[in-house]
Amino acid sequence: MEKEHNLVSGDSLWERFIFRIIYRSDTKLGKLFDVILLSLILLSTIIIMLESVPALGKKFYIYFIISEWIISLFFSAEYVMRIAVVKNKKNYIFSFFGIIDFLALIPFYLSFFFPITKYFLIFRMLRMLRIFRIFNLLDFMNDGFLIVRALKNSSRKIYIFLLFLIIFSVIVGSLMFMVEGGRPGFETIPQSIYWAVVTVTTVGYGDVSPITPTGKFFAVILMLAGYSIIAVPTGIVTAEMRNKRQNKELICERCGNEDIDDDARYCKQCGKKLA
Amino acid sequence: MEKEHNLVSGDSLWERFIFRIIYRSDTKLGKLFDVILLSLILLSTIIIMLESVPALGKKFYIYFIISEWIISLFFSAEYVMRIAVVKNKKNYIFSFFGIIDFLALIPFYLSFFFPITKYFLIFRMLRMLRIFRIFNLLDFMNDGFLIVRALKNSSRKIYIFLLFLIIFSVIVGSLMFMVEGGRPGFETIPQSIYWAVVTVTTVGYGDVSPITPTGKFFAVILMLAGYSIIAVPTGIVTAEMRNKRQNKELICERCGNEDIDDDARYCKQCGKKLA
Amino acid sequence: MEKEHNLVSGDSLWERFIFRIIYRSDTKLGKLFDVILLSLILLSTIIIMLESVPALGKKFYIYFIISEWIISLFFSAEYVMRIAVVKNKKNYIFSFFGIIDFLALIPFYLSFFFPITKYFLIFRMLRMLRIFRIFNLLDFMNDGFLIVRALKNSSRKIYIFLLFLIIFSVIVGSLMFMVEGGRPGFETIPQSIYWAVVTVTTVGYGDVSPITPTGKFFAVILMLAGYSIIAVPTGIVTAEMRNKRQNKELICERCGNEDIDDDARYCKQCGKKLA
Amino acid sequence: MEKEHNLVSGDSLWERFIFRIIYRSDTKLGKLFDVILLSLILLSTIIIMLESVPALGKKFYIYFIISEWIISLFFSAEYVMRIAVVKNKKNYIFSFFGIIDFLALIPFYLSFFFPITKYFLIFRMLRMLRIFRIFNLLDFMNDGFLIVRALKNSSRKIYIFLLFLIIFSVIVGSLMFMVEGGRPGFETIPQSIYWAVVTVTTVGYGDVSPITPTGKFFAVILMLAGYSIIAVPTGIVTAEMRNKRQNKELICERCGNEDIDDDARYCKQCGKKLA
Repeated sequence: MEKEHNLVSGDSLWERFIFRIIYRSDTKLGKLFDVILLSLILLSTIIIMLESVPALGKKFYIYFIISEWIISLFFSAEYVMRIAVVKNKKNYIFSFFGIIDFLALIPFYLSFFFPITKYFLIFRMLRMLRIFRIFNLLDFMNDGFLIVRALKNSSRKIYIFLLFLIIFSVIVGSLMFMVEGGRPGFETIPQSIYWAVVTVTTVGYGDVSPITPTGKFFAVILMLAGYSIIAVPTGIVTAEMRNKRQNKELICERCGNEDIDDDARYCKQCGKKLA
Repeated sequence: MEKEHNLVSGDSLWERFIFRIIYRSDTKLGKLFDVILLSLILLSTIIIMLESVPALGKKFYIYFIISEWIISLFFSAEYVMRIAVVKNKKNYIFSFFGIIDFLALIPFYLSFFFPITKYFLIFRMLRMLRIFRIFNLLDFMNDGFLIVRALKNSSRKIYIFLLFLIIFSVIVGSLMFMVEGGRPGFETIPQSIYWAVVTVTTVGYGDVSPITPTGKFFAVILMLAGYSIIAVPTGIVTAEMRNKRQNKELICERCGNEDIDDDARYCKQCGKKLA
Repeated sequence: MEKEHNLVSGDSLWERFIFRIIYRSDTKLGKLFDVILLSLILLSTIIIMLESVPALGKKFYIYFIISEWIISLFFSAEYVMRIAVVKNKKNYIFSFFGIIDFLALIPFYLSFFFPITKYFLIFRMLRMLRIFRIFNLLDFMNDGFLIVRALKNSSRKIYIFLLFLIIFSVIVGSLMFMVEGGRPGFETIPQSIYWAVVTVTTVGYGDVSPITPTGKFFAVILMLAGYSIIAVPTGIVTAEMRNKRQNKELICERCGNEDIDDDARYCKQCGKKLA
Repeated sequence: MEKEHNLVSGDSLWERFIFRIIYRSDTKLGKLFDVILLSLILLSTIIIMLESVPALGKKFYIYFIISEWIISLFFSAEYVMRIAVVKNKKNYIFSFFGIIDFLALIPFYLSFFFPITKYFLIFRMLRMLRIFRIFNLLDFMNDGFLIVRALKNSSRKIYIFLLFLIIFSVIVGSLMFMVEGGRPGFETIPQSIYWAVVTVTTVGYGDVSPITPTGKFFAVILMLAGYSIIAVPTGIVTAEMRNKRQNKELICERCGNEDIDDDARYCKQCGKKLA
């Protein structure tokens, strides 16, 4: 963690006070702030959901509007504060969470000038991503970080796998378009590809399913293939998760044992004293 | 295992006799008791199931009632006995299995004062959990314990993963609500989220499925994503299961170090060769 | 492989000749015999399938009957031969494949005395299992054996897992029976349990799916749970498959390295000459 | 990589120039060529998809025809060039990608003599496979190669597993044919087998699902079995992916041993310390 005076914009006491509350959670007020933030994010999400239910949306319309105002004003104030007290303002504004914070606010302000459309919704939903920042502060994300790192390290392999899966689905979908002719659900190639993806990922809605015996025969082959290749991404991620040792420099000089704990003083394999 | 005389409530012979039968399974009678218990639990479960089938519920009504009486009285007697012969009564009553035992009994006694409703059912079903206690006694749970421990150790990672999955589903669900407008199954955001979870977990009922080409396009992306991230929990649990260090008895004779890996041949703290 | 003269019943040349053809595949005739057997098994299976299709079953009735006669007589002859030339006849008759061979034949002979019912079918289908014997002979089953061994070694863990899954499904099914009342597909507890299993295994037919919001909420939780615990059997089998080193005796005396190839003369970790 | 002058057909400058552009991507023009090729492949695929949509197929008919002409002529020119500049022409023509290139072209030329049928489609779709060649050039396939190698190494195990799965499905399907009689979806054995595969692979369309209680009971068992054995292919591939030895250049300087593990520090054959 960097020294605080390099991060806070000014030297005045209140700036450092606000900084600690907003950006840190090592004080009581800081933790309280996090809890309030978390509650408002959840509240905001639930309200957006309930608004979409016609029966509720009309009945509690006024409460939803008021809540939205309060939450948006709170988040706006927080956004302004965050910019005010941080030294490197650009860094924050264009950071991942800075952009999320901004995008989550604009629908509220745009709604003064434009009629509210449902397309604003998704931006307000982005607020949910802020949950991860709070969890980050609460030191809850170490394990999550491991997952993300494993996914990142294996991302190239997963991209290649997905590319293969897509090409496979396109070819199988075209094949089924030929086999099932213009039967319901197989009228066009894109629709047949949709069916192929639904099948190979084992989702299997059943809104489209093969009708002719030949189509069923191909479907059976596709399913068995999908069942076999589901092993691939699992194998990729699992193999990556095992590679969790980060400190690669520790190694026993005598026997080459690399599995050395940080607190080890002797090699557990050959008993040599470690430097 | 603790010394028995610390666990049994009194010193009289019959108390120790009952204790051995109920809490242990190293005697013939103790094993017989377990088998009877197991049979009654299974019988009770099957009766509850059959009762719910209208045709059977009416025809065999009287037999079901009688069986329920016998089983409930037996379990009540057992519950009283358990409390009677154990020394630390509080420990048992508020233990996991103590609470299960109690909850599984009250519906029977409440039914004398209140009309029986189907909401009692679930408590009676909790009896099934008692199967695990019997298996525990029969030394069958070593392997089960390994599974539980692996799940426990990786629970934080799995929670984070589930949190991510839920946020992912909420955002995707909202997106689909925008895309599919008010089409059947996508009338509200919660319903769209329901669809997103059904899809990403590859369950795919098909009671709700995308209709517009754009919706199908997003669904395809969601399915491919779900197919890739299914690897994550598997990777977590598999990686955890490999960490099978379990021998807690290993301890270095010279320096008292207890943190000894299974494959260690020398103490990593003092370099002593381990036996 | 045991010495042949201990296995063959007699010492006459033709007995040893037949034995080699039927029980071995190291001669040209033995291999030809295997290929014929394999073809007849596949032919038999295909015929049984086609017979069940009403249109074909009537049209080619006579061909099916004739084929069935030829195949059954061939298999009968083979069965008699197998018993005739083997020394320890009991061993064969009560072996796994001996019983399969017998069960696959009786429907044919019973059909002379009783009308053929579709319940005979399944016995004739058991012939397919004989494919594994032929593969065994052709030295193709080494890898299959590894799979079977890994499944066998982890079978106790898998049983416990399945037991947990069943109890989990029963409790969740009962819960849903309470929530969804008597709505279609949730009329009785067994039916609700059927739905719970369909959901937790991510099969998701959609013949039964939750209708009420509360039911959908529980279903979402169940799906997320199922998505997480699918990792468990995978973790079990994967962990088991890694344990493929069988010769545990090789170990470097100096550094304790256990990863020593059969052809190694020096430890690859510390360079010590191996004994 | 082989010396270039062994690969190029002639010694003239333009031949070597074309060769570098088409077969290599280490020059600017070579990379541009790859990008153009990739774009045309994608364009071609999208056009084939859109053509199949009746509304679009008619409206933009003329544009599709022109695009197809341009793309086909470009690919034809490329195919001729590839043969012209390469030394060992046979090697290219009968290589995997050579055949793909040829098959992807013939539908265009056959369409002059025969009416275009939808059965030509699949050949044009094969062009997509060419994407992998470009990726290969762009050094993007190292990770993909690892996946393919892991699948290849475990292919025998996977074949055996699939064989087992098919036999299992056939037997279960026949069983369900007996149980569910001639109910919809279970009219014939092949249809019942189709249902069994849909179920055991957890696809679960729901176009066919058990109706009788007995059928549902068997289905539950089948689903639980499928849920357990899905672990097998995952275990196979995961175990294979761990075997990541890939550095084929390691060779012991003293004794010439080439079988050197990644983690080896000493030659296992002669004990020499490796650099």
